[in-house]
Amino acid sequence: MSQQPTGQQRDGVAIVYCEGSFDNAYGKTAHGLIRFTRRYDVAAVIDSHLAGRDAGEVLDGTPNGIPIVADLTQGLAAGDAVGSPPTHLVIGLATDGGTIDEPGLAVVRAALDAGLNVDSGLHDFLSERADLAELAFANGGRIRDVRMPPPRAQLHFYSGKIREVDSIVVAVLGTDSAVGKRTTAWRLVESLEAQGTGAEMIGTGQTAWMQGSRYGILLDSLVNDFVAGELEHAVWSAWKETGADYLVVEGQGSLMHPAYPGGFEILAACRPDAVILQHAPARTAYDGFPDAPLHPVETQIEAIELISGRPVVAITLNHEGLDSDEVERWKQRLRESTDLPVFDVLLEGAEGLADAVGNAERFGRGA
Amino acid sequence: MSQQPTGQQRDGVAIVYCEGSFDNAYGKTAHGLIRFTRRYDVAAVIDSHLAGRDAGEVLDGTPNGIPIVADLTQGLAAGDAVGSPPTHLVIGLATDGGTIDEPGLAVVRAALDAGLNVDSGLHDFLSERADLAELAFANGGRIRDVRMPPPRAQLHFYSGKIREVDSIVVAVLGTDSAVGKRTTAWRLVESLEAQGTGAEMIGTGQTAWMQGSRYGILLDSLVNDFVAGELEHAVWSAWKETGADYLVVEGQGSLMHPAYPGGFEILAACRPDAVILQHAPARTAYDGFPDAPLHPVETQIEAIELISGRPVVAITLNHEGLDSDEVERWKQRLRESTDLPVFDVLLEGAEGLADAVGNAERFGRGA
Repeated sequence: MSQQPTGQQRDGVAIVYCEGSFDNAYGKTAHGLIRFTRRYDVAAVIDSHLAGRDAGEVLDGTPNGIPIVADLTQGLAAGDAVGSPPTHLVIGLATDGGTIDEPGLAVVRAALDAGLNVDSGLHDFLSERADLAELAFANGGRIRDVRMPPPRAQLHFYSGKIREVDSIVVAVLGTDSAVGKRTTAWRLVESLEAQGTGAEMIGTGQTAWMQGSRYGILLDSLVNDFVAGELEHAVWSAWKETGADYLVVEGQGSLMHPAYPGGFEILAACRPDAVILQHAPARTAYDGFPDAPLHPVETQIEAIELISGRPVVAITLNHEGLDSDEVERWKQRLRESTDLPVFDVLLEGAEGLADAVGNAERFGRGA
Repeated sequence: MSQQPTGQQRDGVAIVYCEGSFDNAYGKTAHGLIRFTRRYDVAAVIDSHLAGRDAGEVLDGTPNGIPIVADLTQGLAAGDAVGSPPTHLVIGLATDGGTIDEPGLAVVRAALDAGLNVDSGLHDFLSERADLAELAFANGGRIRDVRMPPPRAQLHFYSGKIREVDSIVVAVLGTDSAVGKRTTAWRLVESLEAQGTGAEMIGTGQTAWMQGSRYGILLDSLVNDFVAGELEHAVWSAWKETGADYLVVEGQGSLMHPAYPGGFEILAACRPDAVILQHAPARTAYDGFPDAPLHPVETQIEAIELISGRPVVAITLNHEGLDSDEVERWKQRLRESTDLPVFDVLLEGAEGLADAVGNAERFGRGA
């Protein structure tokens, strides 16, 4: 097990199913789980093509002690071998149609037969399949479809109760989609915790949930009517129940992205005290839309501040496509053009970022 | 019947059910239908408290020949009397919970029994009630739940095909929610048509659908994942199928509204050539949120233009709370502060607005 220390209780020990895709983009949910999760201890990854290798070594070049195995039987054995009998099969595949193929379903059935719980972020809800629901019931397991919205009666309309929240709310937005907002948000939470400051992650996507965010919503799978109210309720609940000093909200999409315009609901409904802006300087067009040129980071800061009336207090870099000299040059350049601190949290950690956010006077709140 | 002339084929003759609420805000769907619809000829409104009066007279002080009746039987008779036997019962009530009470359900049953179709914009889907579905089937009627999203397999992700559209796309956004965007959009469509220009309404809410928009989405009831793609597909389909010179998109919410932040998806996915901004000068706070001061119209224009890169080309006024002198003073004041033409389309018609939009060179498109 190679998990970060945290006081948060785990849901259990997970086998991550990622057959055929641990080394490609369809495995992104598995990748998130392998790199970081507070929800599970990860016992093994299933991908027969890479069986026998170390998951961390395949993913990031650094072994992390999580074995890739060929099938469920080997996965169960891997957990048992280290004294952590697996309790959950977690679907680590994100397919284009959001469905799972017949061989995958067979593994789900076998896992339920073995008494495991099954967690899935697929669009195709496993708990709605009668055969799987029956198997789970018969064996005392539970199927959680992470993308399934709460029943309508449990959803909240925006009420304005966000004004009661006296935690410092920080939103991590991005200049693009898939730019590293979630990772930066987690690193900030960890650094605040390491400084002895109470901090809670407010997740807005399924990967954050699978990584253990205790508060949040699944923005993509909510009916639009309820987005503002559910965001408000998540932040308010985290404040009410934990009293954490800091609430860090994971952004989704990007303000001016043609296909994934996002962040404005977060600015409106979560009323952040400060905004961190994640940016990948090497990108020239929006993710997935090469004909849509990325708006300059300075313009995006202007838009965020104009819309929300709240300040961007730091820029965090995604260094994809940049060597370390280029990262330094970009940091310098962005510091000059924006007068903001600039961090690469993957290279340097998030302590500096936590300090920047902790300097609360700069955005008009008592420290 | 008091309907605007249009070449659009009607769905049929409607009886609008609005028991107990035709003279209050819960009757807003009925009010929209009474003032304007291309989808139905309206034969009568059911509200026993106001039975015997003229719907237009009650609503706007000007009789429009649509009788308010006490019950369904009288509604059917009213249509028959003028040679237009009713074909549809339309639920004109928008209740807080989106449900209908038992007396209302009894009217729905009676309407289905009489062979009528039933159209409803309630959250509580009538077609999912087995008894009503059976009644409809037995009597050859159809229940349409307007808010029911299309099946997932029929939904579209954003693809970028919006770039093919060479109609002029005009978005009618607002400085607030419930400020008159839809009415201005319809008036613009009508004025363009009156000038011999092809124009199509792209509706984004249930009332626009009930008023006869042939293209559009129900933004509120869509899962967030598909909002951009469905907006793009609606505009693209209207262009592809009608080749209309102008496509007028109804806005929803407002850019900086705390509970109903809207317009972003429209700016991103519909790529309007020009934006019209509807504004109620007498409002000082956002609709429903007295503690949230309205952003100045000048700031909102700046935000729209910054986010979208497209120009606001006209301001249209909602004159609620203003006398005619005040309207004139506001027009003058806003003309000076924004350098834009300002119209009150309810008072002066939309010809001037159509001219302003038709002056396409100003926003960089050939006329």
